Amino acid sequence: MQLINKIKKSIDSKTKPIGSLGLIETISKKICLIQKTTKPILNQPKIIVFAGDHGIANSGVSSYPQEVTHQMVRNFLNGGAGINVFSRTHSIDLLIVDSGVNYKFDKTEKLINKKIDFGTKSFINQKAMSERQLEDCFKHGKDLVQEISKLGTNIIGFGEMGIGNTSSAAMIMSYLLDISLEKCVGIGTGLSEKQLIKKRKLLLDAKSFHGNINDCYKVLQTFGGFEIVQMTSAMLESYKQNMIIMVDGFISSCAFLAASKINSKIINNTFFCHLSSEKGHNLLLQKINERAILSLEMRLGEGTGCALAYPIIQNSVNFINEMATFENAKVSSKSND
Amino acid sequence: MQLINKIKKSIDSKTKPIGSLGLIETISKKICLIQKTTKPILNQPKIIVFAGDHGIANSGVSSYPQEVTHQMVRNFLNGGAGINVFSRTHSIDLLIVDSGVNYKFDKTEKLINKKIDFGTKSFINQKAMSERQLEDCFKHGKDLVQEISKLGTNIIGFGEMGIGNTSSAAMIMSYLLDISLEKCVGIGTGLSEKQLIKKRKLLLDAKSFHGNINDCYKVLQTFGGFEIVQMTSAMLESYKQNMIIMVDGFISSCAFLAASKINSKIINNTFFCHLSSEKGHNLLLQKINERAILSLEMRLGEGTGCALAYPIIQNSVNFINEMATFENAKVSSKSND
Repeated sequence: MQLINKIKKSIDSKTKPIGSLGLIETISKKICLIQKTTKPILNQPKIIVFAGDHGIANSGVSSYPQEVTHQMVRNFLNGGAGINVFSRTHSIDLLIVDSGVNYKFDKTEKLINKKIDFGTKSFINQKAMSERQLEDCFKHGKDLVQEISKLGTNIIGFGEMGIGNTSSAAMIMSYLLDISLEKCVGIGTGLSEKQLIKKRKLLLDAKSFHGNINDCYKVLQTFGGFEIVQMTSAMLESYKQNMIIMVDGFISSCAFLAASKINSKIINNTFFCHLSSEKGHNLLLQKINERAILSLEMRLGEGTGCALAYPIIQNSVNFINEMATFENAKVSSKSND
Repeated sequence: MQLINKIKKSIDSKTKPIGSLGLIETISKKICLIQKTTKPILNQPKIIVFAGDHGIANSGVSSYPQEVTHQMVRNFLNGGAGINVFSRTHSIDLLIVDSGVNYKFDKTEKLINKKIDFGTKSFINQKAMSERQLEDCFKHGKDLVQEISKLGTNIIGFGEMGIGNTSSAAMIMSYLLDISLEKCVGIGTGLSEKQLIKKRKLLLDAKSFHGNINDCYKVLQTFGGFEIVQMTSAMLESYKQNMIIMVDGFISSCAFLAASKINSKIINNTFFCHLSSEKGHNLLLQKINERAILSLEMRLGEGTGCALAYPIIQNSVNFINEMATFENAKVSSKSND
């Protein structure tokens, strides 16, 4: 019997009306296909938070000053941020990466150093990074996931921190999906209407300045940031290592979008964890025909959606491994009309 | 400072943009108000599954034979059902109650005996239960929760099992919300279009037979079932004991609806855990201005939605207890424009 049929048979033999566990069944089936088994397993779940600064942050696109990026990195390392709390609840190992924060951290074992530079250049009138920096981002993201894979992790979530990075993400979405920028630009950490108008204007000007860019790598190089590109690369390597990939919210989804342009098969291993309140996210998911597992009106990033969706994935795995069948449990099946 | 202001201050002091944790913040605030504290705690979570049979089950309103109720009760006791799997994942204690299953179980300590009778009468042309049976349901539901409360449980979920009980639930919803029956009747465990038409016709006839019923208790007595009424009573007692109440899907929500007619304050302690695919549920939640925490396209009951939503509630409590403040973490707050 073909694997897909074996999986379907196993799921439909469980003591419940066919299809009545909805998304739990869908997730279970997808994980079985990834792992080529009807007895899937989750090993050493990890969430990586990539942090980086953005040249554009100083042009008034965010309601927080740039220094918040490095302050939040410190908060992550001290265990005080949202993602720390949610990861602890579910015993998910949390890794914090300095992809390019504008701060010189003391050497500490807890922070993974993949620093490219002290922030990207502002893409208003130049490319966010050099070609060399782009290549380094790809190398670092790949190396990191290869290391993690050696430890046995087979499920990995992706989050980010970077003041100004909804601007980069909006540019990436607009270019890669060929959607008008207005539909991709949102309030980020909480802009006022006036500030949002300014942000939109700034990004429209940047789009005019850079003109058409058809190559995915060029889009990433032009708009950054270091944390987004490292995430794209890390996702691609996670797919190569056949891991289950958990994508967080808007920015992570834009990193995924770039990854999927490079290797379209990555979708087979990917779950979108949370539908962000950030404006572009709903449209992005619509365009790629995906739904998020959770919809909790959040817009924080950091991988918080991954940590909160993880128990649903865990239950989807436990469901197929642990639930009794109609036969085992001696439960009558559906009667005919 | 008033409690509500203290809670708001605590939530808004956390290292995240104001409101950016969406529903997590809303849930956290609600639990703080229930427990009158800014340091809430969850104690010994429990889910109770009430099982009962329905006279109407033999009229072709379900795609499963009535015997499935007692077979599934056995499955619950053996740990093989969906609710067993999900409860285990999150260390939620599971209690199974025989509210009135049409089966004589061997005495076992694991099954809680609150049996009223071997199933209700069919409400097609008579009342589902006597006035005395209704009273007994209320007594049993209340007694059970009082016992549980003594053990220190302060969060409790409600699920059910009973072939035919979407029919009872649809009648209750239609009467208590004054909504046309067509909008309340769905496919339950998975009726075909032909079977659904039959079910709808049968229930419409029953509505004609019984005519107007204005009293909530009379509605429950007329349409049952034993498991639904015991659940209504247990919810009311949970409110009295100031527990956090987790409502599962369509049928549990109809039991809640009855409870809220008896004591409207119960909503202050209640979370709707999962938006069921069963037709009436979305409209029911709309009518009472509530949203469910999860929406996973499930329609199983058993309390599965409660078990799956529990980690979200858990994280909402951990959020306010564990997240660092801007001040503690030395993170800059929002800049002014």
